[in-house]
Amino acid sequence: MKKHILVIPGDGIGPEVTTWGKAVLEEIAAQYNHEFTYDEALMGHVAIEATGNPLPDETLEKAKASDAILFGAVGHAKYDNDPSAKVRPEQGLLKIRKELGLYANLRPIMLFDELLDASSLKPEVLRGTDILFFRELTGDVYFGEKKRSEDRNTASDLMIYHRYEVERIAKKAFEAAQVRGKKLCSVDKANVLESSRLWREVVQELAKQYPDVETEHMFIDNAAMQLVKNPKKFDVVLTANLFGDILTDEASQIAGSMGMLASASIGDGTGFFEPIHGSAHDIAGQDKANPLASILSVALMLEISFGLKEEAKKITDAIDKTLKDGYRTGDIADAKTDKAKILGTHAMGQKVLEYLRG
Amino acid sequence: MKKHILVIPGDGIGPEVTTWGKAVLEEIAAQYNHEFTYDEALMGHVAIEATGNPLPDETLEKAKASDAILFGAVGHAKYDNDPSAKVRPEQGLLKIRKELGLYANLRPIMLFDELLDASSLKPEVLRGTDILFFRELTGDVYFGEKKRSEDRNTASDLMIYHRYEVERIAKKAFEAAQVRGKKLCSVDKANVLESSRLWREVVQELAKQYPDVETEHMFIDNAAMQLVKNPKKFDVVLTANLFGDILTDEASQIAGSMGMLASASIGDGTGFFEPIHGSAHDIAGQDKANPLASILSVALMLEISFGLKEEAKKITDAIDKTLKDGYRTGDIADAKTDKAKILGTHAMGQKVLEYLRG
Ligand SMILES: CC(C)[C@H](C(=O)O)[C@@H](O)C(=O)O
Ligand SMILES: CC(C)[C@H](C(=O)O)[C@@H](O)C(=O)O
Repeated sequence: MKKHILVIPGDGIGPEVTTWGKAVLEEIAAQYNHEFTYDEALMGHVAIEATGNPLPDETLEKAKASDAILFGAVGHAKYDNDPSAKVRPEQGLLKIRKELGLYANLRPIMLFDELLDASSLKPEVLRGTDILFFRELTGDVYFGEKKRSEDRNTASDLMIYHRYEVERIAKKAFEAAQVRGKKLCSVDKANVLESSRLWREVVQELAKQYPDVETEHMFIDNAAMQLVKNPKKFDVVLTANLFGDILTDEASQIAGSMGMLASASIGDGTGFFEPIHGSAHDIAGQDKANPLASILSVALMLEISFGLKEEAKKITDAIDKTLKDGYRTGDIADAKTDKAKILGTHAMGQKVLEYLRG
Repeated sequence: MKKHILVIPGDGIGPEVTTWGKAVLEEIAAQYNHEFTYDEALMGHVAIEATGNPLPDETLEKAKASDAILFGAVGHAKYDNDPSAKVRPEQGLLKIRKELGLYANLRPIMLFDELLDASSLKPEVLRGTDILFFRELTGDVYFGEKKRSEDRNTASDLMIYHRYEVERIAKKAFEAAQVRGKKLCSVDKANVLESSRLWREVVQELAKQYPDVETEHMFIDNAAMQLVKNPKKFDVVLTANLFGDILTDEASQIAGSMGMLASASIGDGTGFFEPIHGSAHDIAGQDKANPLASILSVALMLEISFGLKEEAKKITDAIDKTLKDGYRTGDIADAKTDKAKILGTHAMGQKVLEYLRG
């Protein structure tokens, strides 16, 4: 198979982890005789430094011309603590999501048995958990009009949804539920928000077309609680952009660490694959970051964008073996981990490659 | 002390649990020679059924005329599944918050040692956790303009904050931090939202006036994660209405159950005290609800509105003893609980009264 892949390393630990995602792509290409070509582009803080623009036109053009995108992370503490900054790294990420029509963000919560003890939740609460989040990604308060009054004393963001936006992602979520556990939980705040009432209406209507899927509606506050209390009860979770941002980060603790979670953003065109963790500037450049989320992002790319299931499984199996043999990065190590098997980013990437080679 | 207390039982399990809150007030009044008088009023679904209005004028007048309000819960599944309903029980609660100027919602996450095992989090993660949430309660997307397009295909809610709204609650949170662990974590989404950028600006400015308080800013997604990962790191958490709704429900799992958490809403006038749990219609009228959150709401009322610290402590001590002796309602029972000590609402209320008496 011939594919052209754009790598956007981004900020902080982004470059360190995508290096290993790319290395795994190269290994898979060699083993299975695929012809993967690569390009690289700037986004985020690094792009602002180089061009003044968090998403340079060149990056967007390269993105549109590629078959899939492997992304690292964006963000920098410099902007976080300066609420008045006009240009921000995150604008690059939000703009590329919008421009590529990446309206569906899939975040699978995978549970590696070996990591049950790394979570702050009890193993018996976790065991058997298998959730696939569908987070809407191009609407909501993220993209609604933002205003600041002239005296700067009033600020607002418009939380807004159109019927077609809810419909298209809900369809994808229902279809996924059909081939999984046949359960869908739609999360909103319909007891307070008009946009949530539209959301619920649309999901209720669509549900009739999927009678084989058991559909439930839950308020976001309750969902945030149930996710800790009894994560096993969820199968497919469908929710809006902001609620999805919050719930999936919370759910990362089910998998033991953010360092283990990958996400796929799909929609009208090129698919976009990234870890759910952020740029983590506090550990950047220190060989501490966990490269597994980037490697798992590559597995998602192979499966979802290229339909290469066997290759994807080869990757998750290699990670499984790495963990079974006791290797850990710092974020997923616990008191019982053999100190000699706590690896840095580089050594962990190499380990996975070794297991891939068999 | 002479005080006039309005009881608003509301919907679902509201009446069952407030009965015991009130019984505890009466017991305390008798023991300490206070003269507490009571009135009762309608709100929520029951008020809609009786008057067509979720917050009848009479209730609002009685509320304004009282020294403190003990509230149960509002909500009904009937409206939840009907996104087009114009009149809803929750409107009563939102309106009374606004009308009474209850802008600060205090939600202490108390940890009873005896309940460490009832949580889905590991005891070693929980032990030592002591968080006081300050949730803003009269602004945000809850009260911003709601719109539905004529074709009903577009819906929006305005997320909006004014400087003075952030200032007044932030001050209360900083003051609380000064007499607690001297740490304040302000939660927002300033990397995306303009209203959060205003929020962060105001908190940053105010922080200068409280140099003895260590101030931190955290994004809501990260906060939702850290709360599960390492709840001990938080002392005072300050956040907006929507984010606070989500985070405090999530945090209820730290305390083992929603059935254990009380909240105080304060501001310009009369204080308002309620469990953080909802109306739970699925168990209403079955003598299953946990009355402890309502009883703890009464303890908060005595301490915060009336300054009666000793009386408040007497109540939490009585609950402590009840739990130490092994008594549990279903929601906080676990595999190790003596079956004979799993009590219904009524028996649990009686037990607390017994321990209060001596
Ligand atoms: C960086 C930020 C804008 C982004 C978001 O909120 O969507 C991130 O948290 C994510 O979840 O991808
Ligand atoms: C009932 C609902 C409107 C309310 C809210 O969202 O504020 C409740 O969840 C709460 O937390 O008090």
